[in-house]
Amino acid sequence: MTTSAPRNGAQALIRTLVDSGVRVCFANPGTSEMHFVAALDAVPEMRGVLALFEGVVTGAADGYARMADQPAATLLHLGPGLANGLANLHNARRAHTPVVNVIGDHAGYHKGFDAPLESDIGALTGWTEGWSRTTTDPAEIGADAAAAVAAAQAGQIANLVLPADVSWGEGGVPAAPAPRPVLSEVDDERVAAVAEVLRSGESTVLLLGAGATREAGLLAASRISVATGVKLFAETFPARIERGAGLPAVDRLGYLAEQVQWQLTDVKHLVLVGAKAPVSFFAYPGKVSELTPEGCQVHTLASLGEDTAGALAKLAEVVAADTEPVLQEPSRPALPSGDLTPQNWTEVIGALLPERAIIADEANTSGLMIPMTTAGAPRHDVLTLTGGSIGYGLPVAVGAAVACPDRPVICLQSDGSAMYTISALWTMARENLDVTTVLLNNRAYAILRMELMRVGVEGAGPQANSLLDLARPDLDFVSIARGMGVPATRATTAEELAEQFAAALAEPGPHLIEAMVPSLI
Amino acid sequence: MTTSAPRNGAQALIRTLVDSGVRVCFANPGTSEMHFVAALDAVPEMRGVLALFEGVVTGAADGYARMADQPAATLLHLGPGLANGLANLHNARRAHTPVVNVIGDHAGYHKGFDAPLESDIGALTGWTEGWSRTTTDPAEIGADAAAAVAAAQAGQIANLVLPADVSWGEGGVPAAPAPRPVLSEVDDERVAAVAEVLRSGESTVLLLGAGATREAGLLAASRISVATGVKLFAETFPARIERGAGLPAVDRLGYLAEQVQWQLTDVKHLVLVGAKAPVSFFAYPGKVSELTPEGCQVHTLASLGEDTAGALAKLAEVVAADTEPVLQEPSRPALPSGDLTPQNWTEVIGALLPERAIIADEANTSGLMIPMTTAGAPRHDVLTLTGGSIGYGLPVAVGAAVACPDRPVICLQSDGSAMYTISALWTMARENLDVTTVLLNNRAYAILRMELMRVGVEGAGPQANSLLDLARPDLDFVSIARGMGVPATRATTAEELAEQFAAALAEPGPHLIEAMVPSLI
Repeated sequence: MTTSAPRNGAQALIRTLVDSGVRVCFANPGTSEMHFVAALDAVPEMRGVLALFEGVVTGAADGYARMADQPAATLLHLGPGLANGLANLHNARRAHTPVVNVIGDHAGYHKGFDAPLESDIGALTGWTEGWSRTTTDPAEIGADAAAAVAAAQAGQIANLVLPADVSWGEGGVPAAPAPRPVLSEVDDERVAAVAEVLRSGESTVLLLGAGATREAGLLAASRISVATGVKLFAETFPARIERGAGLPAVDRLGYLAEQVQWQLTDVKHLVLVGAKAPVSFFAYPGKVSELTPEGCQVHTLASLGEDTAGALAKLAEVVAADTEPVLQEPSRPALPSGDLTPQNWTEVIGALLPERAIIADEANTSGLMIPMTTAGAPRHDVLTLTGGSIGYGLPVAVGAAVACPDRPVICLQSDGSAMYTISALWTMARENLDVTTVLLNNRAYAILRMELMRVGVEGAGPQANSLLDLARPDLDFVSIARGMGVPATRATTAEELAEQFAAALAEPGPHLIEAMVPSLI
Repeated sequence: MTTSAPRNGAQALIRTLVDSGVRVCFANPGTSEMHFVAALDAVPEMRGVLALFEGVVTGAADGYARMADQPAATLLHLGPGLANGLANLHNARRAHTPVVNVIGDHAGYHKGFDAPLESDIGALTGWTEGWSRTTTDPAEIGADAAAAVAAAQAGQIANLVLPADVSWGEGGVPAAPAPRPVLSEVDDERVAAVAEVLRSGESTVLLLGAGATREAGLLAASRISVATGVKLFAETFPARIERGAGLPAVDRLGYLAEQVQWQLTDVKHLVLVGAKAPVSFFAYPGKVSELTPEGCQVHTLASLGEDTAGALAKLAEVVAADTEPVLQEPSRPALPSGDLTPQNWTEVIGALLPERAIIADEANTSGLMIPMTTAGAPRHDVLTLTGGSIGYGLPVAVGAAVACPDRPVICLQSDGSAMYTISALWTMARENLDVTTVLLNNRAYAILRMELMRVGVEGAGPQANSLLDLARPDLDFVSIARGMGVPATRATTAEELAEQFAAALAEPGPHLIEAMVPSLI
């Protein structure tokens, strides 16, 4: 840490972030952030990445942190800029992702004048249910920034509001990094209690969430499963799950309540490991919200904020000391042929998925078969839509690619969701990120067609159907992607998809393949 | 109003909205809104208009209401859907536009389970500083909807949170429209006091805001100006200003503090008519926030919520009983030639602006000359960026075109701002709206280049400049627009722009012209 030169608040802030391990700032700045922007040149270890919309900024920060295990910063322009970034912060909150938002605000003395961009920023930071602070003195900015990073590292959104006069004010003082928060260890008593449950011989499920879906947790969970017969599931939408050949294969709970109920049939004990007991994603008339079967006891091995992988290791030591995990054998589907279908496009991905891929999955209804067809592909990470707030896939792919420049990122992106944050393509092009986007164009909000039936609506008419239909006009994602500087092609057959996917993987930088996959429904 | 058939909550809600005069619902629905969507077919007088992003939904509602003087409804999907719509609601709030948001939420009994899309919707509705209510019983939905419309008609955002079980619940009861709120009349005493100021002979400005920038207010203000010598200005960003040949010409205060200070030089009395005393848009080091000159007295003829045009009429009766207004003569610039410049493209618009046009103006730095070059064009309306939250132009153009299908809408749209809500183009295509978008592509956040200097940053380096630069890669708006179903062309010379603009005006439906106008800075 260098502390010699006089600094303004922005410079002290960025210096502190960098010293705390924050090396990337995804930004969409405005006038009140100009001193922060200028200060990036004073602290060149911080990389500024421009996005054209704040939903891309925050989604990229989420994707970055899921892969880097370290927060990125965002730079947002007052209340409206933060507002535009909230939907993907919602996903980050549900992923327990560390994010440090720097939210520019008017100078303190200017706030009382109710200038046009004035708004209640505190209402919005409050919505993120994280850590929030407004810095009022350049001398405090370093300490506040270090506190923000530490708060984020505990797995939450940290919101640091930066008034313009604090940003430009002299006397900025950088601070040393705050200690990185450590996960609480799970005590032996809790481990012993769960071990007792496993020994009962009754049908038991270990449900793996935060942290437990990474390699160490999966290996321990597999040993436990082999030794005791307990079934393993991952939560429906893990922030990051490691999988593929050489790792234990763990299915995720389904999105539909009916699937979960089927997966948990006759289960007597549900053991939570960083996950919550499953609930229905939405309410449906006459259907239950809680998906734990009647009579099933719920136990907690480790909660959020606790060391889930460590708890699994301890449990494995107790119940599976000499047991080896079962690892997925390498296995790929054959390359299919013919017109694209909801199944065969996923076989193409499974057949060709490169080594060490990161999959940002927002394929929604089009992607139902992806877990099956990629199960035996080379080891890879999958990032999922943790909060249900759509428009997450492309931005998260941006962030993952910035975090892991040596790994291929595959973005599986449905058409409707893509349009919320489509300008992420431009940032992929600007930063020359190695992202291959497979854009599943079924010309519909297909999931809503399904949900319209599931919520019990009968005989929906032309107005209702029109609101679920993305044709008239057809979106041409090849044209849109090219307009944002991303090379793009269209595939209508499995052969074309395979050829284009292989070609995209072989060439560095971003590519988009518009896959004309018919809707399931 | 029909009340005979049994209804669910959604049907009663839509019936009440329609009976209260709300005839359009801009929508981006999700699962929790499926019964509302289905109910649109039960109440066919409500027109559902799909947008692919909630910022388009809310911006369109803003544009609709500015032109229709009646609210549209929006349909938004839980907290994240509302979050995505907030930035343009901020502009609507600053425009005092009536908007009725219907925000779907989980069924009441489902909320306690913290399902993935659960969030604190109240924090977000609170941010809009308007009217908010959550309906908990289908029997109450009609009354709540009528109250929401009345609240909106008073010039604010009304947020009606609709839990899914209220939407699908039986026993929905429509309600009669609530009385439309009336603007308070300004009393004679206040009028007399201002008349006294005008008679002082000291340098005086009438600053026209909400409502006073429409025909009746402008005519009265002009008469007052002619009779007393008072200067007229409109606020910097009026929600809607009527202008052109046959109406009094009233300049707007400038965006830059320096401009406003110049416009108000030596003014001794500032009379507010539905406007606020001017403040700097942003704070700048060493510069003042308040722009009223020192020693200038501020008087209020009419505040927000009062009848501004009526107050001006009363004042005119007192000080200008026999005076005629001065009306703008028809006058158009000559069609220019040569490569496009920040000035000559505005001359093309002025030369060719059609009768009864509606201009949605988000041209930002590229549009500085537009007020001058269109001053003598045929009478038209201009809608401006009231809250400074960019990404407003295309959505507002959508709403204006839905409100006024018989009028040509011209969207003057800068490149950087366009990318926040670019999918508005798709809705223009789907609804075949007669919107001609002139997309000013200067490949920069040019306003931020200017602001970087104005805030006193010296020697910004490559990282800073990179964050203000929209090249690398160049955005190709022709390709993007075609990808969303809007016919598009590119103009690099004034002749090309004139030819393409005339052609677009001559053909119904949406068009986009990408005008390659170099940045001012």
